[in-house]
Amino acid sequence: MSKDRLQAFSDGVIAILITIMVLELHTPKGTDWHALREELPVLLAYVLSFVFIGIYWNNHHHMLSAVNRVSGASLWANQHLLFWLSLVPFATAWMSENNFPAVPTAVYGVVLLAAGIAYYVLQMTLLRADPEGSILAAAIGKDLKGKISPLVYCLGIGLSFVDRWLGIAVYVSVALMWLVPDRRVERVLSGPGANG
Amino acid sequence: MSKDRLQAFSDGVIAILITIMVLELHTPKGTDWHALREELPVLLAYVLSFVFIGIYWNNHHHMLSAVNRVSGASLWANQHLLFWLSLVPFATAWMSENNFPAVPTAVYGVVLLAAGIAYYVLQMTLLRADPEGSILAAAIGKDLKGKISPLVYCLGIGLSFVDRWLGIAVYVSVALMWLVPDRRVERVLSGPGANG
Amino acid sequence: MSKDRLQAFSDGVIAILITIMVLELHTPKGTDWHALREELPVLLAYVLSFVFIGIYWNNHHHMLSAVNRVSGASLWANQHLLFWLSLVPFATAWMSENNFPAVPTAVYGVVLLAAGIAYYVLQMTLLRADPEGSILAAAIGKDLKGKISPLVYCLGIGLSFVDRWLGIAVYVSVALMWLVPDRRVERVLSGPGANG
Amino acid sequence: MSKDRLQAFSDGVIAILITIMVLELHTPKGTDWHALREELPVLLAYVLSFVFIGIYWNNHHHMLSAVNRVSGASLWANQHLLFWLSLVPFATAWMSENNFPAVPTAVYGVVLLAAGIAYYVLQMTLLRADPEGSILAAAIGKDLKGKISPLVYCLGIGLSFVDRWLGIAVYVSVALMWLVPDRRVERVLSGPGANG
Repeated sequence: MSKDRLQAFSDGVIAILITIMVLELHTPKGTDWHALREELPVLLAYVLSFVFIGIYWNNHHHMLSAVNRVSGASLWANQHLLFWLSLVPFATAWMSENNFPAVPTAVYGVVLLAAGIAYYVLQMTLLRADPEGSILAAAIGKDLKGKISPLVYCLGIGLSFVDRWLGIAVYVSVALMWLVPDRRVERVLSGPGANG
Repeated sequence: MSKDRLQAFSDGVIAILITIMVLELHTPKGTDWHALREELPVLLAYVLSFVFIGIYWNNHHHMLSAVNRVSGASLWANQHLLFWLSLVPFATAWMSENNFPAVPTAVYGVVLLAAGIAYYVLQMTLLRADPEGSILAAAIGKDLKGKISPLVYCLGIGLSFVDRWLGIAVYVSVALMWLVPDRRVERVLSGPGANG
Repeated sequence: MSKDRLQAFSDGVIAILITIMVLELHTPKGTDWHALREELPVLLAYVLSFVFIGIYWNNHHHMLSAVNRVSGASLWANQHLLFWLSLVPFATAWMSENNFPAVPTAVYGVVLLAAGIAYYVLQMTLLRADPEGSILAAAIGKDLKGKISPLVYCLGIGLSFVDRWLGIAVYVSVALMWLVPDRRVERVLSGPGANG
Repeated sequence: MSKDRLQAFSDGVIAILITIMVLELHTPKGTDWHALREELPVLLAYVLSFVFIGIYWNNHHHMLSAVNRVSGASLWANQHLLFWLSLVPFATAWMSENNFPAVPTAVYGVVLLAAGIAYYVLQMTLLRADPEGSILAAAIGKDLKGKISPLVYCLGIGLSFVDRWLGIAVYVSVALMWLVPDRRVERVLSGPGANG
């Protein structure tokens, strides 16, 4: 089965998700700098979610580049990932419109955690569809970041109830960790002498 | 006529439909777990419609993989299918925002029924555009699921007036029936010795 | 210059336009058949605009199939067409939410007229970029429908002020005229012995 | 790394941005010409932003046509550009719904300025990923327009506080400057004897 249409559909959904979040940016009530500053929490949460969805697109891009075939199971694993990503705008709005209270901040982390797990499941189904010793397997290697992220999300969810800003800080740190581009796949793709 | 642009356009519309439903997920009124639980019916209806549209994308993907040419009639049959799918967000919102009353629950079933019929019509026009004995014809075979679904939808529509939860249960069962991936086409595509 | 990205971008915009109109379908106020019937004018206007945008996508599809190159002017002529199409959801909502009063019904016709002219201008720039005697030139032939449509739109705009339903009826007749698929291009594309 | 998916994703986001702005065009309050005229500032701001995003799509199209490879850094530079473009609908709505007051008009300019800088940064990363003496380098040449635009935006931002219409006039003049299609790239792409 061709992977092209899977990529095209995923890109479509991710492009829409990253863009419709902007519809949550309500026009500030007033026309001065103060009115804009009141929207600042919403804007900052938008930046964070924009970066998270951008990271998913970027990693999704790399992962599918290293794959030749997709199975029927991969199609549904991909839908499952898109489902959790589709809840990001909802979680972002609930969290930021109310100035980051504990429960919505934790729920935001739960959505990120679920998306992270869905990504991991998708990776597993892609590995199973491709023969052993594939480029993807070599590229992922030990997949430290993929294994650490869920734990860090859990930490962030817990900390949201202690201090909401601690929770946010943990989520931001996951984003920063991933912003370092996933050179593993790039390296393996570009040369046979690479050490995964 | 090339099928590429038809696929691209359909993927675009389906990707948008599956995503804009999330705009119906209003921010909960309040910031505790109770406020989130009040949104639960809307969230569950969202999951159901997400799965239904995902099934259509998946089957559409498979069906067009097995086709070489599309006729002018297929273009319009495809638009007709997209039209009914485009009403899914509307029907989902009406049904779930009001906690699943009888009429909106029945209307939701009518939209699903109409989309199912439109899919069947599209399949017919694709079969007519392709020569007899095509891959698609072999892949569809007796098309039991395609023939049963409309009957089950009718049952669900009727049951909505008896007990709304019975109607919902019937719709869910159709989704579950289709979630089993359509191996028929995959099998025929992957080997000549397959028994459709 | 390649026409692929122009097609992809146009498909994207048209797919979004045809879909976001559904966001104008507000949830009916109430949960019985009567509440749904109150939304009927909005639903019918949605069907009409869905068909119009579908026709544009279909004809755009055919027109670009018959073209090899696009010029810089074509890119902007295409943007111009997309601009007028992007006003269709706005005009549809204004017209239908108020039960088809004279001015909004006329404005709806003005948007359709402007889109029709923009389509004609795009066709001209594509013809100029391609050599004489091209497939597109042969396919268009006398372009009767393209030349009649603007006149009929003008008639509809005028009639909107006499009786709004007359205006609507004229718009519907243009849609029906175009629903007959554009066999001219198909015929020329499929055989050299075709008489444009 | 292939540039195809980068183009597809960018086209998707830009297509959505240019289209969802239409959701800000609220239905006029009333059904006569006067009600429509009250929406005129919003409509004119929509036209301006539609043209700006159209220019970005057009130039992005040309720039990536002249590039063979994209680096990991280019992916993020592209996301950065898309981020600022995604704020255009927000800035447009704030500026136009309030009849162009000073601060929102200046903020609109700030968003355009940031998008312009992000475009410049993307261009730099693309140049670095491609070998020296590439088509892109020749095509850009001295890049006068790219270097002047930020300065003119700064002028417009400042003038917004003197007279809002002066600010708008400056933004419009930048759009007009860019509406002249970017023949530099086209020229270099089409012939080896071109003088960049």
